[in-house]
Amino acid sequence: MNGQFNVTPTVEEYEFQTKRTPGKTGLMMISIGGNNGTTLCATIIANHHNIIWHTKAGVQQPNYIGSLFRASTVRIGTEPGSGKEVHVPVSDVLPMVHPNDLVLGGWDISGVPMDKAMERAQVLDYDLQRQVAPYIALLGKPLPSIYYPDFIAANQEARADNMIRGTDKAAHLEHIHADIRKFKKDNELDQVVVFWTANTECYSDIVPGVNDTADNLLASIKMSHSEVSPSTLFAVAAILEGEPFINGAPQNTFVPGAIELAEHHHSFIGGDDLKSGQTKLKSVLAEFLVNAGIKPLSIASYNHLGNNDGHNLSAERQFRSKEISKSSVVDDMVDVNCLLYKAPEVRPKGVPIGKGEHPDHIVVIKYVPAVGDSKRAIDKYYSEIFCGGRSTINIFNECEDSLLATPLILDLTILTELLTRVQYHKVTRNAAKQKDFAPLYSVLSLLSYMLKAPLVKPGTEVINSLNRQCNALEGFLKACIGLEGSSDLLLETRIW
Amino acid sequence: MNGQFNVTPTVEEYEFQTKRTPGKTGLMMISIGGNNGTTLCATIIANHHNIIWHTKAGVQQPNYIGSLFRASTVRIGTEPGSGKEVHVPVSDVLPMVHPNDLVLGGWDISGVPMDKAMERAQVLDYDLQRQVAPYIALLGKPLPSIYYPDFIAANQEARADNMIRGTDKAAHLEHIHADIRKFKKDNELDQVVVFWTANTECYSDIVPGVNDTADNLLASIKMSHSEVSPSTLFAVAAILEGEPFINGAPQNTFVPGAIELAEHHHSFIGGDDLKSGQTKLKSVLAEFLVNAGIKPLSIASYNHLGNNDGHNLSAERQFRSKEISKSSVVDDMVDVNCLLYKAPEVRPKGVPIGKGEHPDHIVVIKYVPAVGDSKRAIDKYYSEIFCGGRSTINIFNECEDSLLATPLILDLTILTELLTRVQYHKVTRNAAKQKDFAPLYSVLSLLSYMLKAPLVKPGTEVINSLNRQCNALEGFLKACIGLEGSSDLLLETRIW
Amino acid sequence: MNGQFNVTPTVEEYEFQTKRTPGKTGLMMISIGGNNGTTLCATIIANHHNIIWHTKAGVQQPNYIGSLFRASTVRIGTEPGSGKEVHVPVSDVLPMVHPNDLVLGGWDISGVPMDKAMERAQVLDYDLQRQVAPYIALLGKPLPSIYYPDFIAANQEARADNMIRGTDKAAHLEHIHADIRKFKKDNELDQVVVFWTANTECYSDIVPGVNDTADNLLASIKMSHSEVSPSTLFAVAAILEGEPFINGAPQNTFVPGAIELAEHHHSFIGGDDLKSGQTKLKSVLAEFLVNAGIKPLSIASYNHLGNNDGHNLSAERQFRSKEISKSSVVDDMVDVNCLLYKAPEVRPKGVPIGKGEHPDHIVVIKYVPAVGDSKRAIDKYYSEIFCGGRSTINIFNECEDSLLATPLILDLTILTELLTRVQYHKVTRNAAKQKDFAPLYSVLSLLSYMLKAPLVKPGTEVINSLNRQCNALEGFLKACIGLEGSSDLLLETRIW
Amino acid sequence: MNGQFNVTPTVEEYEFQTKRTPGKTGLMMISIGGNNGTTLCATIIANHHNIIWHTKAGVQQPNYIGSLFRASTVRIGTEPGSGKEVHVPVSDVLPMVHPNDLVLGGWDISGVPMDKAMERAQVLDYDLQRQVAPYIALLGKPLPSIYYPDFIAANQEARADNMIRGTDKAAHLEHIHADIRKFKKDNELDQVVVFWTANTECYSDIVPGVNDTADNLLASIKMSHSEVSPSTLFAVAAILEGEPFINGAPQNTFVPGAIELAEHHHSFIGGDDLKSGQTKLKSVLAEFLVNAGIKPLSIASYNHLGNNDGHNLSAERQFRSKEISKSSVVDDMVDVNCLLYKAPEVRPKGVPIGKGEHPDHIVVIKYVPAVGDSKRAIDKYYSEIFCGGRSTINIFNECEDSLLATPLILDLTILTELLTRVQYHKVTRNAAKQKDFAPLYSVLSLLSYMLKAPLVKPGTEVINSLNRQCNALEGFLKACIGLEGSSDLLLETRIW
Repeated sequence: MNGQFNVTPTVEEYEFQTKRTPGKTGLMMISIGGNNGTTLCATIIANHHNIIWHTKAGVQQPNYIGSLFRASTVRIGTEPGSGKEVHVPVSDVLPMVHPNDLVLGGWDISGVPMDKAMERAQVLDYDLQRQVAPYIALLGKPLPSIYYPDFIAANQEARADNMIRGTDKAAHLEHIHADIRKFKKDNELDQVVVFWTANTECYSDIVPGVNDTADNLLASIKMSHSEVSPSTLFAVAAILEGEPFINGAPQNTFVPGAIELAEHHHSFIGGDDLKSGQTKLKSVLAEFLVNAGIKPLSIASYNHLGNNDGHNLSAERQFRSKEISKSSVVDDMVDVNCLLYKAPEVRPKGVPIGKGEHPDHIVVIKYVPAVGDSKRAIDKYYSEIFCGGRSTINIFNECEDSLLATPLILDLTILTELLTRVQYHKVTRNAAKQKDFAPLYSVLSLLSYMLKAPLVKPGTEVINSLNRQCNALEGFLKACIGLEGSSDLLLETRIW
Repeated sequence: MNGQFNVTPTVEEYEFQTKRTPGKTGLMMISIGGNNGTTLCATIIANHHNIIWHTKAGVQQPNYIGSLFRASTVRIGTEPGSGKEVHVPVSDVLPMVHPNDLVLGGWDISGVPMDKAMERAQVLDYDLQRQVAPYIALLGKPLPSIYYPDFIAANQEARADNMIRGTDKAAHLEHIHADIRKFKKDNELDQVVVFWTANTECYSDIVPGVNDTADNLLASIKMSHSEVSPSTLFAVAAILEGEPFINGAPQNTFVPGAIELAEHHHSFIGGDDLKSGQTKLKSVLAEFLVNAGIKPLSIASYNHLGNNDGHNLSAERQFRSKEISKSSVVDDMVDVNCLLYKAPEVRPKGVPIGKGEHPDHIVVIKYVPAVGDSKRAIDKYYSEIFCGGRSTINIFNECEDSLLATPLILDLTILTELLTRVQYHKVTRNAAKQKDFAPLYSVLSLLSYMLKAPLVKPGTEVINSLNRQCNALEGFLKACIGLEGSSDLLLETRIW
Repeated sequence: MNGQFNVTPTVEEYEFQTKRTPGKTGLMMISIGGNNGTTLCATIIANHHNIIWHTKAGVQQPNYIGSLFRASTVRIGTEPGSGKEVHVPVSDVLPMVHPNDLVLGGWDISGVPMDKAMERAQVLDYDLQRQVAPYIALLGKPLPSIYYPDFIAANQEARADNMIRGTDKAAHLEHIHADIRKFKKDNELDQVVVFWTANTECYSDIVPGVNDTADNLLASIKMSHSEVSPSTLFAVAAILEGEPFINGAPQNTFVPGAIELAEHHHSFIGGDDLKSGQTKLKSVLAEFLVNAGIKPLSIASYNHLGNNDGHNLSAERQFRSKEISKSSVVDDMVDVNCLLYKAPEVRPKGVPIGKGEHPDHIVVIKYVPAVGDSKRAIDKYYSEIFCGGRSTINIFNECEDSLLATPLILDLTILTELLTRVQYHKVTRNAAKQKDFAPLYSVLSLLSYMLKAPLVKPGTEVINSLNRQCNALEGFLKACIGLEGSSDLLLETRIW
Repeated sequence: MNGQFNVTPTVEEYEFQTKRTPGKTGLMMISIGGNNGTTLCATIIANHHNIIWHTKAGVQQPNYIGSLFRASTVRIGTEPGSGKEVHVPVSDVLPMVHPNDLVLGGWDISGVPMDKAMERAQVLDYDLQRQVAPYIALLGKPLPSIYYPDFIAANQEARADNMIRGTDKAAHLEHIHADIRKFKKDNELDQVVVFWTANTECYSDIVPGVNDTADNLLASIKMSHSEVSPSTLFAVAAILEGEPFINGAPQNTFVPGAIELAEHHHSFIGGDDLKSGQTKLKSVLAEFLVNAGIKPLSIASYNHLGNNDGHNLSAERQFRSKEISKSSVVDDMVDVNCLLYKAPEVRPKGVPIGKGEHPDHIVVIKYVPAVGDSKRAIDKYYSEIFCGGRSTINIFNECEDSLLATPLILDLTILTELLTRVQYHKVTRNAAKQKDFAPLYSVLSLLSYMLKAPLVKPGTEVINSLNRQCNALEGFLKACIGLEGSSDLLLETRIW
């Protein structure tokens, strides 16, 4: 009232229980023959067999640098004597599946065998490729995949030579479902994570009666409705099989009917769009600026790349999916600061008029074959500071696209596997009323840290702040072993 | 043992008590006639009198953009009905002094009157200067200051025409002490914050018997010892008067004897070096990279600017002070991640050999008169990613130096004033043993967020992570009103 | 033959004759109320009246920096005694019209008076605007202009409130023609240069029977054919009046019929598109790289700006005109080096198959209101060097768009006026056959130095190399006073 | 007089005669085992044996991209029928030595064999190194070289294990002289170019009586005077042997006595400092800006690199040599434009007071091991434009240092060899007075195009403009085959 708030602290107590050891885990990728897919397979092979290779700079060891769960540490407390902080590898906090132990498989609309596909990707050093080739060749040719030309760029047609036959979407669904079951059985897996790392599709229209509920979606598949995308079919197959499905691309695979279906089956889903480079940095920079009381007036983001992802995105409709996923990142940063950005005016009944003040924000992606997999991103922040001053921050960012993306696929797989083992219940004093432990909610919003446009529980707010995503994840992992989240209050250093 | 840790959660309970209203507060700056000093005075005048001015882009309002305490918000909870997060201006959480109410004064070795000094600074728009001039002229000429040529660059001599006479350091101390008392009395102040925003001095040698204890320091002042710098004299004067002293420059004003003296007098001190631009951004970027599992191999930072700060720093010894303060920022980021950076080998008794692996880190500052107060900073991050990949991030950063620094001076003043009003005691169940409320410890490490090389309680660790500094500050402010710090766990969004 | 060439030096002798003094000259701009138009008027006023103004950096003098003819020098030879080179201002080589003496006028579809239009442009410092305002106000309101919505972006409609009535294109032509005559008469001018500095139009289709010949074009105007653009109408009006017309925008104002009409009337025309910023730099960089034997593989150019030009270009069809004009600049650099870029294969009869090897080249322009007239351009050159090496050059370029463009408008006007005074004949030994002096050819290709997509004599090659354009201009000016072009051979410094 | 000049065109006629075929040519490098030396040898081997190699992007061919004489074309005229311009490879204009035919040898203070030295350099792709290794190993170990610790950085001592014994400079001179003779004889060479591509030395003081005349220099060598540098000794050895000596580093190897000695022996010399990257680009940019009437106010240049050149330059005195060579490049651009930069005031007798107006210009080089041979250069141009506007151009430039430098060494060698074959005489009408053909002057200023601080004939002006250097070279080559230099006047395209 009157802009005043009464704040009431509330406390609820929960107990967590985590199954100790990860089971034997598979990872099935859609587009296993693409840049991400081949890079992931090749680098797991390199790590597994400890293949070292030569570059002009000398001998290079395989590693998992860039993976949160293999290369980061977490602060777990203070050494009693010295007061020194203690950090341990994240992977030591809880038992997690090791990437070297993942069983790999998947589909691709291109039937090029895996060793040739790795070569086509042009991502890894030649001397590494040379040594990995005989191993990766053992993965053979990807499973036939689903290709509906309407959903991806026309320029992808030249690659499409390995498709499941026919146009019956229900048959396609059943085919994929069978592929997953067979893969599990053949490899004696406890679990398999199904991962979309294929082309960005254009958005599906959300049409009442078509994809708005679980039942409608299943019915639409039966009648091969045109609005059902390949990625949604893969997601439905995984959901029906009870296996987690992660969407690493920006399109709205998870139409409302798909989310509802996951809830019904208590299956896990997560998405959307790997947060690998420019967007991740932007979320950090934008938050930094606004937190520092500096007001971005415009953010101009330009990208170009020359891999097949760039090729597909050079089509207008596919780019549009990407643009949406990349644009939302600054929205919540603006919303939280009504001192810098004027909130929209509000009509009598609390309905806002328009969007309120907002920085200009443009996103451009271009296809430039010459640069290959090496993505070049430029961000220009133009901001207002104190009393009419201006701040200009221009960022050039250059990195192999697939080497940023691949560790994220690993992290999402590792974290997803872990979350399937966590159970919780609310603690009540009345033992009679104490409920059994239950698995987490279907939409794994704790994956947000690695995702550009995080899918969250319907009705809850999306949090784009990387710091907050990180805090949440750290807090959750610690909660699983009974520790409190990090407080940086460190009161003992402030008092006598 | 064996790399394994047993973690034991510990709980201590504290109570805080904060005096409701801020008193009438003064701000005395050393170098009030410099770019920061004049910009601060002029912008407070502009805000206080609501002076609007014209630029080519139209009409400009005065504001405090860039000030954490005037332009930022803090999340205080969730709206019960909608589950929406609620953010309020930081300044609404606790009563704080408003910058418009600060009483301004200070010293300068240059006796140019304040209106001419503002013009010399070339920071603010001409049409703002034109209107502010008659008001700022009322502040007259700065008080004479202390000038010891050994401590600042030779090129500053041309400005030095307004000095306290003689070479007797004890007399200088007394003169400054009297200035502070007179300023308080004349303006009927409850409190005055003394703020060093003058030239970077070279480091003082820490010499046993000279400045290592409070007594030795006082004795050294009596004998006009050459190692006692002007900034230390100002600090001692403030400490003896019981008023807070903040060091906004990088030199080691707070020699051990000065810190001990502050402890003895229960006076407050804070420092060192305003964290305004490149370093602040670097702390964010470096933390971002390491947290993302990306391993910086080299960080090259180049700056140039054309204001008097740049002129002074073009001298080797003064630059050295700055270089030290700017370099430490990546140290703790490296220390926390033993997966990316090999820790030093350790001798039998736990003594480390050498420094361990560390990124190359260079810092260059150059004086380029043509760019004036507009600082141009460049940072190049060259990092290793997944399996031998490389990431390059190049940042151009351009901003008026004084427009970034001035809001930090305000924030440090506001926060310092607030912290002088906070008292605490540890809660014990035994009422008889319950101690009285006591003020905070002398070294105000909660100011770290605004400082490049935070001064902390001796024996405790410096935290450079901007996120952690921010969390600490937010947590402390909330603790003062009985709220818990932010948890981003948001468990209700993860479960059924 | 067989890749061998026989080179035969040929010599022809010409005589030039230049009318000594420039006449009284007018400049009529289409879009006089736009950013370029108002900036040009305001800065001529400032120079003419020697108005000085204040900025935060001090007192600023008016000047013509950025104008080749007012701020550059040319080497005219060597001092006999010392051997030192002698450079003189270009303006001293031949008599030229001084910008201060130009009589200003023009049209605009927006009827905002000139002082308000200058304010709307947000280009010049406020304190300069303040002083110029009473003078520029005397220019009153622009003449009504021609507005055909099909040719410019829909977003321009909001500005269009000052149009010549009706839809009869012949009447519009006559109206403009009358405007020119009246302007000349009222101001007692010897000559008036008509200059298109208005919105970029979309391209006109070249349709046989419509605009392919002079007669067809005139007939099409009579029947108000939809393919006749406003800029072509203005050009035709100037041509018919015998006054030079310059097109400062990228569209194909000069359809073949317009060029033929100019030839018939021996009128002068020049274009297209002011070469102010990114393209000019690109022509230099691209030539530098290829000359250095470095092979650009891709050139990615991104721009954004927030002025009305940017607004108009945010429409797809108008952007297309700009994209064409900006793209051609690297074509000839590629064509000349068959060692770096494989020429296209050639069919038996010499017809090339395809385009041959070419660098990837993209151009993006975006509208970002926040940056106003300050254009931000980024160019990324990615090149192959020696034995598989790679060179990356990234350029950030930031400048007020109109402050770069305005001096070019002046230079084009000055040079055009000069060229109308030059006459030539070929020297023959047979005096009887000696022809009279004749004026230059209608298409003034010597203007190329200031133009992005130079219009040249049909059937001759376009030269984009800035160095060669510069050499040509310098050589021509020197030829007019009987000097040879620069030779840098300087043989006397190479021999004994 | 009175700022007016009378210009009198003068004509002199010369005839040139060029020996048809290049002889068998050797190239002896000082520091053959360094990055440039090993890269040059390895790439010649790769080209000679047509070694192809794999990179992640596919198969790579060896080439001489980046060499003016192997990868550039020159316009030689216009096709009679079509009027189209004709460009031919530079190497087709005159017979030149082919790099594949050079016989390679040289000295190094490090005795690492050539295959290991190539590996140490970390410049070429691993798969190329792998194949080149057996061939380059045949070059064995470099000849022992001269090491005087005073002249190079202390950090080079660790590499110095292959030195000619003793401290007698005359003996050292004789040793080198003998090495050259032996190399010629052993390889049956017609000629050998001696090339300094070793460490930057500090400047030698020019001391009257020591190195100011040829005789004094020879005497100083006899007495092992401390001011005689290793590079001067190598130069003297080559001069005495009558073989050309090129200095690819910035120090003043060519003290006045060395130049006089070369004149006495009619030997050829050239220098100083390879113009490979940042400086070359700067000369182009600075000239572009000033020619466009844009006035640079400051140019800030930062570099870092991690190869041994960077290591040596991290020492203050060696850096100083480099700084001088890099700074001069903008001097002549400023001198030629008295409209933009105020000339110095002049005393009665024509003596200038001070330097006149000049842009701020800083150059920084830092050693950052992590980036290896990949040099990162940053240039920031801050300029004044029209009526108080500002232009900012920021350039990031990244390239393998040695891959830019190596083609320049080739070009200098090829051009030097060619120039030794050119002879000239002045044409007189009086046949009796016609002098014989004579070789060119000793200092080969036509090499300027590839050199940062061109050595020119004493008393003549240094020309830094890359365009003018290029024009001179092109004009000279054409003059050798009887063609006129390029005129871009193209009059036929300007007239009817």
